[in-house]
Amino acid sequence: MRKDVYLKTVPWREAQGLFLDTVLGPGRRARTKAEVIATAEAVGRVTAAPAFAVVSWPHYHAAAMDGVAVSSRDTAGASETNPGRLDRDQYDPVDTGDPLPPGRDAVIMSEELHPLPDGRLEVIAAVPPWDNVRPVGEDVVAGEIVVPAGHRLRPADVGALLAAGVVTVAVRRRPRVGIIPTGDELVPVGEAVAPGQIPEFNSVILAGMLAEWGAVPAVYPPVPDDPGAVRDAMVRAAAECDLVLTIGGSSAGSGDYTARAMAECGEVLVHGVNTRPGKPVVLGLIYGDRRPQHGAAAREDRTVVVRGTRAPVPAVGIPGYPVSAVLATELFVRPLVLTLQGLSSPAAEVLRGRLTRRLASAAGVEEFVRVRVGRVGDEWVVAPLSRGAGLTTSLVRADGWLVVPAGVEGFAEGQEVEVQLLRSRAEIEGCLLVTGSHDPALDVLGSLLGERHPGLGLSSANVGSLAGLVALGSGECHAAGCHLLDAETGEYNAPYVRRLLAGRRVVLFPLHFRQQGIMVAPGNPKGIRGIEDLARPDVSFVNRQRGSGTRVLLDWLLGQKGISPRQVNGYAREMFTHAQVAVAVESGTADAGLGVLSAAKALGLDFIPVAEEQYDLAFLPGTLEDHRVRALLEVARSGEFARALEEMGGYRPATGDAREVGP
Amino acid sequence: MRKDVYLKTVPWREAQGLFLDTVLGPGRRARTKAEVIATAEAVGRVTAAPAFAVVSWPHYHAAAMDGVAVSSRDTAGASETNPGRLDRDQYDPVDTGDPLPPGRDAVIMSEELHPLPDGRLEVIAAVPPWDNVRPVGEDVVAGEIVVPAGHRLRPADVGALLAAGVVTVAVRRRPRVGIIPTGDELVPVGEAVAPGQIPEFNSVILAGMLAEWGAVPAVYPPVPDDPGAVRDAMVRAAAECDLVLTIGGSSAGSGDYTARAMAECGEVLVHGVNTRPGKPVVLGLIYGDRRPQHGAAAREDRTVVVRGTRAPVPAVGIPGYPVSAVLATELFVRPLVLTLQGLSSPAAEVLRGRLTRRLASAAGVEEFVRVRVGRVGDEWVVAPLSRGAGLTTSLVRADGWLVVPAGVEGFAEGQEVEVQLLRSRAEIEGCLLVTGSHDPALDVLGSLLGERHPGLGLSSANVGSLAGLVALGSGECHAAGCHLLDAETGEYNAPYVRRLLAGRRVVLFPLHFRQQGIMVAPGNPKGIRGIEDLARPDVSFVNRQRGSGTRVLLDWLLGQKGISPRQVNGYAREMFTHAQVAVAVESGTADAGLGVLSAAKALGLDFIPVAEEQYDLAFLPGTLEDHRVRALLEVARSGEFARALEEMGGYRPATGDAREVGP
Repeated sequence: MRKDVYLKTVPWREAQGLFLDTVLGPGRRARTKAEVIATAEAVGRVTAAPAFAVVSWPHYHAAAMDGVAVSSRDTAGASETNPGRLDRDQYDPVDTGDPLPPGRDAVIMSEELHPLPDGRLEVIAAVPPWDNVRPVGEDVVAGEIVVPAGHRLRPADVGALLAAGVVTVAVRRRPRVGIIPTGDELVPVGEAVAPGQIPEFNSVILAGMLAEWGAVPAVYPPVPDDPGAVRDAMVRAAAECDLVLTIGGSSAGSGDYTARAMAECGEVLVHGVNTRPGKPVVLGLIYGDRRPQHGAAAREDRTVVVRGTRAPVPAVGIPGYPVSAVLATELFVRPLVLTLQGLSSPAAEVLRGRLTRRLASAAGVEEFVRVRVGRVGDEWVVAPLSRGAGLTTSLVRADGWLVVPAGVEGFAEGQEVEVQLLRSRAEIEGCLLVTGSHDPALDVLGSLLGERHPGLGLSSANVGSLAGLVALGSGECHAAGCHLLDAETGEYNAPYVRRLLAGRRVVLFPLHFRQQGIMVAPGNPKGIRGIEDLARPDVSFVNRQRGSGTRVLLDWLLGQKGISPRQVNGYAREMFTHAQVAVAVESGTADAGLGVLSAAKALGLDFIPVAEEQYDLAFLPGTLEDHRVRALLEVARSGEFARALEEMGGYRPATGDAREVGP
Repeated sequence: MRKDVYLKTVPWREAQGLFLDTVLGPGRRARTKAEVIATAEAVGRVTAAPAFAVVSWPHYHAAAMDGVAVSSRDTAGASETNPGRLDRDQYDPVDTGDPLPPGRDAVIMSEELHPLPDGRLEVIAAVPPWDNVRPVGEDVVAGEIVVPAGHRLRPADVGALLAAGVVTVAVRRRPRVGIIPTGDELVPVGEAVAPGQIPEFNSVILAGMLAEWGAVPAVYPPVPDDPGAVRDAMVRAAAECDLVLTIGGSSAGSGDYTARAMAECGEVLVHGVNTRPGKPVVLGLIYGDRRPQHGAAAREDRTVVVRGTRAPVPAVGIPGYPVSAVLATELFVRPLVLTLQGLSSPAAEVLRGRLTRRLASAAGVEEFVRVRVGRVGDEWVVAPLSRGAGLTTSLVRADGWLVVPAGVEGFAEGQEVEVQLLRSRAEIEGCLLVTGSHDPALDVLGSLLGERHPGLGLSSANVGSLAGLVALGSGECHAAGCHLLDAETGEYNAPYVRRLLAGRRVVLFPLHFRQQGIMVAPGNPKGIRGIEDLARPDVSFVNRQRGSGTRVLLDWLLGQKGISPRQVNGYAREMFTHAQVAVAVESGTADAGLGVLSAAKALGLDFIPVAEEQYDLAFLPGTLEDHRVRALLEVARSGEFARALEEMGGYRPATGDAREVGP
């Protein structure tokens, strides 16, 4: 069953270059046609030609002040010692913006007037011509260029155009981009999904990205996995759009028809690029019913959009995994859509930071790894996120992409790396990195923080309590969440801090007390009543990862009952969050797991309480002066957070003071 | 007639603080109400609450590869040397995304399958449970927070929400902002304007800015300068909006009614702030018919938007000069509109650069000066633009604001200053600064450059040929435009370079030859035939500024005819551009001026040719390797530019090589 998945995997820059050169022609100068629209509605549009002033602005000599309009000649020679006098017919009161009456060429400000009882004015200084006057064309003169071609109009640009009498403006037509979701498994968003079915949400992501780049997305109904249907949909969309995207079916498996369909109604330029994720991309052209002769002449004719409907239309087969889809759209669709409007594709902002852990990557592939970034102390730290191409939440959490070039097999822990930012530096700076024990209450805390202090946020990484303390010690996060029971003293957290971060002072801030318990299926079919039942041969268990506080608690509880881990069926099966443990129980792959009540409640599981534990946030003392940390601690002690904990169930708000631990 | 213009001019930060505290309440925590909308339409909106996953994603155990689904137990112990065999009922073919059939817990990839002729499969390695499977909840588990509150939804966030079954989402209502233009002088955009009338374009600028910040602008019909009409319009808008802006009439002159109207239907908190431009701002509240009791209790009640229609509505009187209007809206409206949505007001990006010339500023006023910024060599240079509050084109050309604090009387030439950017660094980096002689063809050249090379542009400063060469020498621009005739040799430009930039090597690139001539009113009513007529007592002239090539040319032409400048009536009246000279002639304030044909043509003037001159762009040699300069020179030699010159009239394209001048 082994087969050649791709004819050829092309370096993505080469693929991008071939695609853009083919579609945009020599010098990549193809643009969408111009259209003339009302200037007042042109904010965000790109000028197709320079816009020349139709009238001068101001279009008349205007008073620049409230006062009186005079003829400067009538004031010649006037001074403090030898004041002049203006008769009633030698001046006219004017307000700012009024036109200068005929024969007047200057304005004296109200504040500097000396009226005489007989209605005349005394003038104590000669007034230069055009003083306090905005002459015709001071801002712009008819015939001058107000904005150049290729300029994205901002609100103030539109104002300047309207001031200059430019009431319509030639702009580039927004490229119309057809989006065709493909796949038998797709159901419309909001409908019930059976196993094997998925809601069709990729088109919403792509349409949103395209709209941000100035294109007009047109989402077509999903097409089943049938080569003829995919081809027909492509041809139909090509007749109506400047660019056609399909989603899914772009790989080379038995149910993947994008490349085949594109070859049937056009031409495949590239199938497969050397990126991870995003490898299964198809780049090509759709000819519709007008398949041209091959050869040099036909190639010339490929320049697409500027030639109108008779020309071939560019097409991209986007992979179906969401992260792959986003990356492929960034790499191959964005530059095309921007260039068609005469815009550049500005490079992403780049930031250099220290990698928190080793990152391995296969050679020969350019890997795009989503990362979280945080400013800890004086340093930027870069933490890789999970790399699955289907992880939509990694796109939500990502602050940037870390690119591992094809010739590099990865980066070492602590190495300085370059990140292409997906958020602004300011947004990233507002975010606190909390590493350590997973707790659903942390997400709630972060949400309240952002709601109460716009611009601040909390990003948590679930590595377990022990690894969190280690990360805190090496400056990789602002705080570590931990709930580590010391078997000898019964004390929480402080003994571990002394052991793991010997010589460092750490502040432990009590966040809450929480109920841990055994999660079981609704109705507790196996009749589990406590820790001792986990040793039963008919009970399967799902565990948390080594180093997590919950695992430490389990080991302590088992020890109390004299049970060996080897007696627990499934002790080796590790999950990284309470929620993942809950879902394993809910989906029937385990009978029991240890975790917090809120996770059990969320999935409707039964819960057998076994212990209440103390959850602390650990900080290095210097951090407590950080305004973000102060805001976080204020929210953590707020009534709102206490109420939120109560609603979640299984929590008791902490009220105690922070404890300092260490030398 | 002297009067107190403002009761009190408040430092703007204090005014902003008072306004925001009053409107948003203690801690500035007031937000617009939440509304529930379809998630698919929520891109750009701000979450009003954390959004919890409704279903887990994936919602079933899914094959992560094309291959066969197996039970891992059936592969236990298999190895290369001791392969296992799977019967036909021990495996099921699956494609990526298919649900795992009951009893299966792992997938073997197609590439690793060894089918036997009898339909069985050979397995050469034990498969761990959950290998090549995306388990339920791998991405997100029902009940987990997908996005926190106060989060501006990006396309990928919306995708993650839809994957998690979140089909509706609670977002902050967009604040509705009423905009009331005021003034008898306003006419609708596109209608004919008489002297004293102006098109009402400020509301378009403000509406565009508000939309960018997430608000919904509602533009009301213009209101005449009548205190009752302004008050009625305020009350009506307050009943329908979360915030009311008036434009114009915010000063304290005889025709300014904003403050009075606001006091009549509400309360004025601030009238006048210490900024330039933007001083005449009114900040206050509109009570409508519900003027509350004054005192502490009433003050509590002011927290506005969250309380619904019964509460007072904040109002801002925006000044009518466009630059003032933009600044006041940035300072007082933006933070309110963003905070009401739960968003932060990120500080503008800041850049440090060297000021090209001395900048004086009055003490006691915080001045916001528009500046152009450019990267010349390794340095950022900052060039102040004209400061008039009515100059809409200065908003088009500005790259940023340079703020001169109230306690500072200005900055010295060459001083390092901080600029708050209005464009991205990338946009600014793409822009070439050309300083020196004004020529309309430069704008055309810049427009072609941007059209052909998206991201590149040209920004010209009209300081005259001589000042341009000096600026080039001191590294303040990329190129200097010049057309300087040496009286002794008859040679253009090179002798001046030798004189002004002694010891520097300069490259002179011939841009074009252009016709200079005398511009006169249509029909040439004064019968002017040549330079000698400028000495006639009945002819008034308008000149260009000292140091401009056109002035040098005039002086040479006058010298040829033996005419003294003192004989020319109006020799001292200086304009900075050809267009301004043309408009002086067109508006009848001068009978004649010297300039290029294109400027005369634009205003329909008659033109008497007197000389053809050579216009060069001067560069320092190192600059010629700059990719932006190379692109510029390529466009300057293109057929498109030659055609554009021909269309403008009075130009001849240059074809000669660049000349190197200097030691």
